[in-house]
Amino acid sequence: MNVISNGVTAPQGFKANGLFCGIKKSGKPDLALIACEIPAVAASLFTQNSIKAAPILVSQKKMRFKKVQAIIINSGNANCFTGNFGYLYAQRSTEVIARLLNIPEHYVLVASTGIIGRPLPFKRIENAAPALVEGLSPHNGLKAAQAILTTDKKIKEIAVEFFLDGKKITMGACAKGSGMIQPNMATMLGFITTDCAIEQQLLTRALKQAVEPSFNSITVDGCMSTNDMVTIMANGFARNKIIDGPGKNFEIFCEALNYVCLDLAKKIVLDAEGATKFIAVNVNGANNKDEAKKAALAIANSNLVKTAAYGCDPNWGRVAAAVGAVGLKVTEKDLKIRFSSFAKKDITITVDLNLGNYNATVYTSDLTLEYIKINGKYN
Amino acid sequence: MNVISNGVTAPQGFKANGLFCGIKKSGKPDLALIACEIPAVAASLFTQNSIKAAPILVSQKKMRFKKVQAIIINSGNANCFTGNFGYLYAQRSTEVIARLLNIPEHYVLVASTGIIGRPLPFKRIENAAPALVEGLSPHNGLKAAQAILTTDKKIKEIAVEFFLDGKKITMGACAKGSGMIQPNMATMLGFITTDCAIEQQLLTRALKQAVEPSFNSITVDGCMSTNDMVTIMANGFARNKIIDGPGKNFEIFCEALNYVCLDLAKKIVLDAEGATKFIAVNVNGANNKDEAKKAALAIANSNLVKTAAYGCDPNWGRVAAAVGAVGLKVTEKDLKIRFSSFAKKDITITVDLNLGNYNATVYTSDLTLEYIKINGKYN
Repeated sequence: MNVISNGVTAPQGFKANGLFCGIKKSGKPDLALIACEIPAVAASLFTQNSIKAAPILVSQKKMRFKKVQAIIINSGNANCFTGNFGYLYAQRSTEVIARLLNIPEHYVLVASTGIIGRPLPFKRIENAAPALVEGLSPHNGLKAAQAILTTDKKIKEIAVEFFLDGKKITMGACAKGSGMIQPNMATMLGFITTDCAIEQQLLTRALKQAVEPSFNSITVDGCMSTNDMVTIMANGFARNKIIDGPGKNFEIFCEALNYVCLDLAKKIVLDAEGATKFIAVNVNGANNKDEAKKAALAIANSNLVKTAAYGCDPNWGRVAAAVGAVGLKVTEKDLKIRFSSFAKKDITITVDLNLGNYNATVYTSDLTLEYIKINGKYN
Repeated sequence: MNVISNGVTAPQGFKANGLFCGIKKSGKPDLALIACEIPAVAASLFTQNSIKAAPILVSQKKMRFKKVQAIIINSGNANCFTGNFGYLYAQRSTEVIARLLNIPEHYVLVASTGIIGRPLPFKRIENAAPALVEGLSPHNGLKAAQAILTTDKKIKEIAVEFFLDGKKITMGACAKGSGMIQPNMATMLGFITTDCAIEQQLLTRALKQAVEPSFNSITVDGCMSTNDMVTIMANGFARNKIIDGPGKNFEIFCEALNYVCLDLAKKIVLDAEGATKFIAVNVNGANNKDEAKKAALAIANSNLVKTAAYGCDPNWGRVAAAVGAVGLKVTEKDLKIRFSSFAKKDITITVDLNLGNYNATVYTSDLTLEYIKINGKYN
């Protein structure tokens, strides 16, 4: 597997674009489109938050068709808690794109990220849509990756190529991390494209297993968003023998997808609000996978552990207290805690529970003065 | 019910003292003793953390006797994660006091608060014990309240008097809040004294119901300590007809105890590390009590809500997202969110779930630059 350039437009048959349509006060790009030449086999995962943004509700509905040909994404406005009009505007956004691309509207998904509770300036999206479609290009993956950002400082994209039975397969992706607008609610969006031929059920399975140790194993502040969404589109343009069951080719595909998702997930943590550290929390020796992850998340979400990391203070008492609070039957004698050097930017915290044989790793950032300034509106 | 002075030494038959024995580098008082003339009927509640400090393990064991005559408390060292010696020193502390007071050691509890993982300087405690006992006085409640503090800025004590069948009953208490030493792990300690005559089972019941809406309904950073402990001692010196069952007198007693516990709990939040705001989170209309509290805690522990409070920004999107993340079946249409003015020091956040008839209130502080400085060792 090789890492290549061109993000979501690296695979054959995908185009993208991004531009400023007038949502962000900063004048930065705020509208993106990712499109495929044909309806691609697709899989999506959505936020588990009970309060779901309008674009999530609209896209969830469309995923019944299990194919996606285009995704329109706006940043700067989450279109969440926006009532009937919010839902209508999310749906209308997909209709506008469908009309311009001359494709069925049920093949168009919509995603939003930004401030909760403000009406979506739909007219601006509608007005910008023709230029957005006009500018679609197999070289504009970067523009889409840029236009989905909010307070992210860095563009997050990746592409890889690998081989299945001698056929070159390409996979590309972009994501936005937990950022705030103005400031506001964090949202995580991820879009993956591939020219691999794969059946929809297996694509869904591959996405689920890839998201668990990547996007679902990162935390910046423990706050689950109303707008999270990850979608993968597979158009089959690589003309490989279709992956229609488990086996070696499915494993190679999963390996590439895991790499792509973990790469983006780590980039999100690295670019977390105010972060100065990248912290990997390994929990070993749990009775089961859930327990391991619960303990790892408890450590990763502990404000005391995160501020200790910020202060370069390897304070294992805080780690012990965080693990103990989870409710596991762990005792002082069982628990082993190891740290890498806290002076470095990359920190590893390893905890052995000595209860069983299951492990989990979670990635997080430190809690810093800058985080408070960003989210307390103090700058 | 009247609020009076003199804290834990307000009720008849109680003495207290506090002094510096050499644990804290600051030279501030770090050793306290609360003692009763007779073995008092007692009830205790301890931290739910699986990692329990040595004094918790020792005191839990002694509570089998259901009577307490003295409590020795040190601050500056949590005596947690300190192995066999930690346990031995906690036990020995109680033996030293028992010998000096000439009472059975199983009537002496021990509590600690401060840094986790450092050996307890037991020799200093042992050396200071004679002076500690020597200085016991029915006027020194304040000294005990002072000596149990860590980074708390304010002393937290309260006393009340009320009447049962014409007999005056007095209840006093002191507490320490979530503070850090050097900085380190937060701990909450609470000690309540009363001259009321009450059976042990009812005292336990009264304490449990009082702790739930007070000490168990506050959160500063969501981090559960290894050293939390609340103890009440009732010596019967008021010579009231013993409370031996539910009824009016038990209710009056509970009312006083609730007042005392809530008063101290609020004082802990008001004095939370770096806090500039006192936030009451009311959740109404839940299906059950647990659900209401879970939602209230989710809001109170959200770093995004806490930083918004710090920034005086009534950001209801963050409240909605926090509630939604709990996993309740609440929708955008059901949810009603109201704020008091965010410009003031006291903030109320009220959320109606419109699911059922249960309510809960949780108290918290804001998340501030000062909190990060204290816990990131940046000052």
